[in-house]
Amino acid sequence: MKVMRAVNTKQCAPIIYALLQLIIFYAGLNAVKGVWPLPHALTSSVEQYPLNPQTFAFDYGKHSATQQGCSLLDAAFRRYFSLIFPDYTAENGQLEVAANNSFNLYSSTDHNDCENYPNDDSSERYNLSVSAGQASLNAATVWGILRGLETFSQLVYQDDLGSYFVNETFIEDFPRFQFRGVLLDTSRHYLPVHAILKTLDAMSYSKFNVFHWHIVDDPSFPYQSRSFPELSKKGAFHPATHVYTQSDVRRVISYARMRGIRVLPEFDSPGHTGSWGKGQSDLLTPCYKGGAPSEVTSVFPDSYIHLGGDEVDFSCWRSNPHVRAFMQKMGFGGDFPKLEAFYIENIVNITSANNKTSIVWQDVFDYHERRSALSVVEVWKHGCYLCKVRQVTKAGLRVILASPWYLDLPGPTHNWARYYTVWPLAFPGSEKQKRLVIGGEVCMWGEYVDATNLFPKLWPRASAAAERLWSDEKQTSSVEKAFPRLEDFRCKLLRRGIQAGPLNVGHCKHEYQGV
Amino acid sequence: MKVMRAVNTKQCAPIIYALLQLIIFYAGLNAVKGVWPLPHALTSSVEQYPLNPQTFAFDYGKHSATQQGCSLLDAAFRRYFSLIFPDYTAENGQLEVAANNSFNLYSSTDHNDCENYPNDDSSERYNLSVSAGQASLNAATVWGILRGLETFSQLVYQDDLGSYFVNETFIEDFPRFQFRGVLLDTSRHYLPVHAILKTLDAMSYSKFNVFHWHIVDDPSFPYQSRSFPELSKKGAFHPATHVYTQSDVRRVISYARMRGIRVLPEFDSPGHTGSWGKGQSDLLTPCYKGGAPSEVTSVFPDSYIHLGGDEVDFSCWRSNPHVRAFMQKMGFGGDFPKLEAFYIENIVNITSANNKTSIVWQDVFDYHERRSALSVVEVWKHGCYLCKVRQVTKAGLRVILASPWYLDLPGPTHNWARYYTVWPLAFPGSEKQKRLVIGGEVCMWGEYVDATNLFPKLWPRASAAAERLWSDEKQTSSVEKAFPRLEDFRCKLLRRGIQAGPLNVGHCKHEYQGV
Repeated sequence: MKVMRAVNTKQCAPIIYALLQLIIFYAGLNAVKGVWPLPHALTSSVEQYPLNPQTFAFDYGKHSATQQGCSLLDAAFRRYFSLIFPDYTAENGQLEVAANNSFNLYSSTDHNDCENYPNDDSSERYNLSVSAGQASLNAATVWGILRGLETFSQLVYQDDLGSYFVNETFIEDFPRFQFRGVLLDTSRHYLPVHAILKTLDAMSYSKFNVFHWHIVDDPSFPYQSRSFPELSKKGAFHPATHVYTQSDVRRVISYARMRGIRVLPEFDSPGHTGSWGKGQSDLLTPCYKGGAPSEVTSVFPDSYIHLGGDEVDFSCWRSNPHVRAFMQKMGFGGDFPKLEAFYIENIVNITSANNKTSIVWQDVFDYHERRSALSVVEVWKHGCYLCKVRQVTKAGLRVILASPWYLDLPGPTHNWARYYTVWPLAFPGSEKQKRLVIGGEVCMWGEYVDATNLFPKLWPRASAAAERLWSDEKQTSSVEKAFPRLEDFRCKLLRRGIQAGPLNVGHCKHEYQGV
Repeated sequence: MKVMRAVNTKQCAPIIYALLQLIIFYAGLNAVKGVWPLPHALTSSVEQYPLNPQTFAFDYGKHSATQQGCSLLDAAFRRYFSLIFPDYTAENGQLEVAANNSFNLYSSTDHNDCENYPNDDSSERYNLSVSAGQASLNAATVWGILRGLETFSQLVYQDDLGSYFVNETFIEDFPRFQFRGVLLDTSRHYLPVHAILKTLDAMSYSKFNVFHWHIVDDPSFPYQSRSFPELSKKGAFHPATHVYTQSDVRRVISYARMRGIRVLPEFDSPGHTGSWGKGQSDLLTPCYKGGAPSEVTSVFPDSYIHLGGDEVDFSCWRSNPHVRAFMQKMGFGGDFPKLEAFYIENIVNITSANNKTSIVWQDVFDYHERRSALSVVEVWKHGCYLCKVRQVTKAGLRVILASPWYLDLPGPTHNWARYYTVWPLAFPGSEKQKRLVIGGEVCMWGEYVDATNLFPKLWPRASAAAERLWSDEKQTSSVEKAFPRLEDFRCKLLRRGIQAGPLNVGHCKHEYQGV
């Protein structure tokens, strides 16, 4: 019996859908409940193939541009082997091997981009076909292969006896938005490096591709700068235990790259610099142009850099006679927004000169007169955020949307539907304007968040946003349909050791065991 | 220099207090920030004594009724040794031992109650004096010693080099309320046994003394009954992995006893029994009197038992012709509250016949006409809960207050002050009425709580309630004064491996390392 099941229900007559449900019910299948985020086109059948960890193998397609020795994919194969066969260890691996039981997953890429970093024009598109005895995963780039491996790993399931199966499946998939970020704030509370790495793991399970590292802010300066070591020595909560060394930063960037995730650093200024002055009191004027930006551009490989620019408190500048004198000299009078614009324009120019694209918080757009100097604006304020998206795209600038995804805000942790029912393009505007919305971002500010509560606050609520950013909006507009699939995905996260919070009364076969 | 510092600031002239602050400041002391919950009378000086793990010893006082071989205290000494010297292991223990550096803590009790269970009349009062080379801890019972050991462990601190110190201190302490509980709900989500044990650890750090085990409810029946094994076989989320075996239950009771914590089981009925019917459809009428109550009274040693009685949905009874016929026979007509009262009265009587004191939720009090049959009422509804406390105590019944401490409710996790600023006796009533308020309870219902988020939701917010229930209200009425002490206590919890959530921006010397 082999029946194809289209996931896009709009293409299914209800009666056929009901029949298929019946067939699946009577077949008694312990079938996979779904993939999260939902692929753009997925068809699967009740035809199931056993997978045996001893005869399962990842391999490269004959004509693939990447071959064995591509360390990024070799490592991904090892990682996904453990994720696909969580019960398999060398000790219990002495099962009888049936020769006809072998299964190969062949990955093929068009390009050999093993050594690259993912960037804003990286393709993540992939095709996956799973049929008798083998699966084929094709993509232009290694990044597409990573996304396809994640999807494949979610298709595999276990029956009550622990045997592994995968159903016949065909998938064509690609992201709806290029920029799908998670912001962590490591200034208000210090997050241990392994909490960041675990977040990167969980991000890859939901196909997020940008880690926005809000690394410093008023409360502490944990970034150990090569140019300005005093900044963390005096500005960190503790100069030895609460810092990110250059080696830590390299580790995070490398770990992220292996998972197809960009690291977007933010050195927020001219506001939110309370911790800077402790170590480098003369930093903001004479030094800033000299060392910091070029260090940042050399340490962080991504072509984007986040310059901050939010919540500037003019009263501080107003109190400073040197600042006021400078303003007189420049002809700004008492117009502090003009001074701020001057400041931002300068660092945007420095950033451009370093071949980087700068992102700024929407405050800069709001204050700025010469907006054409800007490139990407992150919309974060509440209220009618789509009005702002419309306004920024009308000015021809790119937008990253964060307003509806402030997951750190007080509120019930099970309110995932609030983050699911966000429509980033539901504003009146041209097609060109819509294309300027390059993506969105989940923000986890650190006022009341540290390693003790980060994971159940972030997951699986961030996954709700992830589906909005990756999947086809029309296929994923129903909270009711999404709920059982998200519940299932949350159990997968628990199985993988991610402390994802509960959505409602219920249970997972494998509960979180980390306490 | 030796200056006594009274914690009760009302006894200090402000100028002396300021002077002492100065002295402490100039002495550069890395002094202990406080004990949580605050002892009733505490004086300490800047005189500090080094503690060396190699020469520190717990011992029994010469005239103590308990002596070596009292397994409860012997085990407590081992436990608190590790808590007091967290960095000390056999490996790093090869420090030079100075002979004049020895320090003994002598514990003395009036009674030898090593083998007992704590109960509702157990004294927890203790006196602790810490002076040169030794400390004395005196109490009527082993339970008082346990509380004093916790206090002593919080008095010890480390300097920047890792050396341990304790200051000269004199403490007289006792609980304000006898009943200081934490409710966990293991029906809406299953909590692994080690999550319960870890909760008992954390409870002992805040001097809670009752674990209210809301063990079964509508969603699942995880209690593996000897009399009715079908209940968990069919009513648990999973009959093998999501159950509490008799051995699990014994382990929880024993672990709790070792920490001076009573285990109060709740088998909520006649509402909230959705999961019972799955395994024992005839349970509620012919069987209930036969097996379940006597099993429960023999398995759970505490003299209290919680009978539930909340949120009864009469529409179910109304739909049943047998129930309606029974009501006619009894002359209740269509008065369902009468039927409910009849039911509750019967199980209260059975409970009394088993020499147990029954607790019921306030719904029973509200419906009941013959209230004199009741003994302890737990007030849980919102609104003017003190009005209800007044009403129940006026009827001569004892009260446990839960309304203001529903910590599972959606809301910011850092709102500890809401749980701190509760005044359980601030209702108009006689002294006799006030004495009927036997305590309070923190409730962690399980709709959106499981092992992934239990700890940062519960701690340190439950500790705020713990201080209200243990300490003198007049000395602990200021949120501002409590804040730095609670922040410090939260860091202690982290150091002990309890995943306590952050209260605000900041850091702990030892961050949570459990991710």
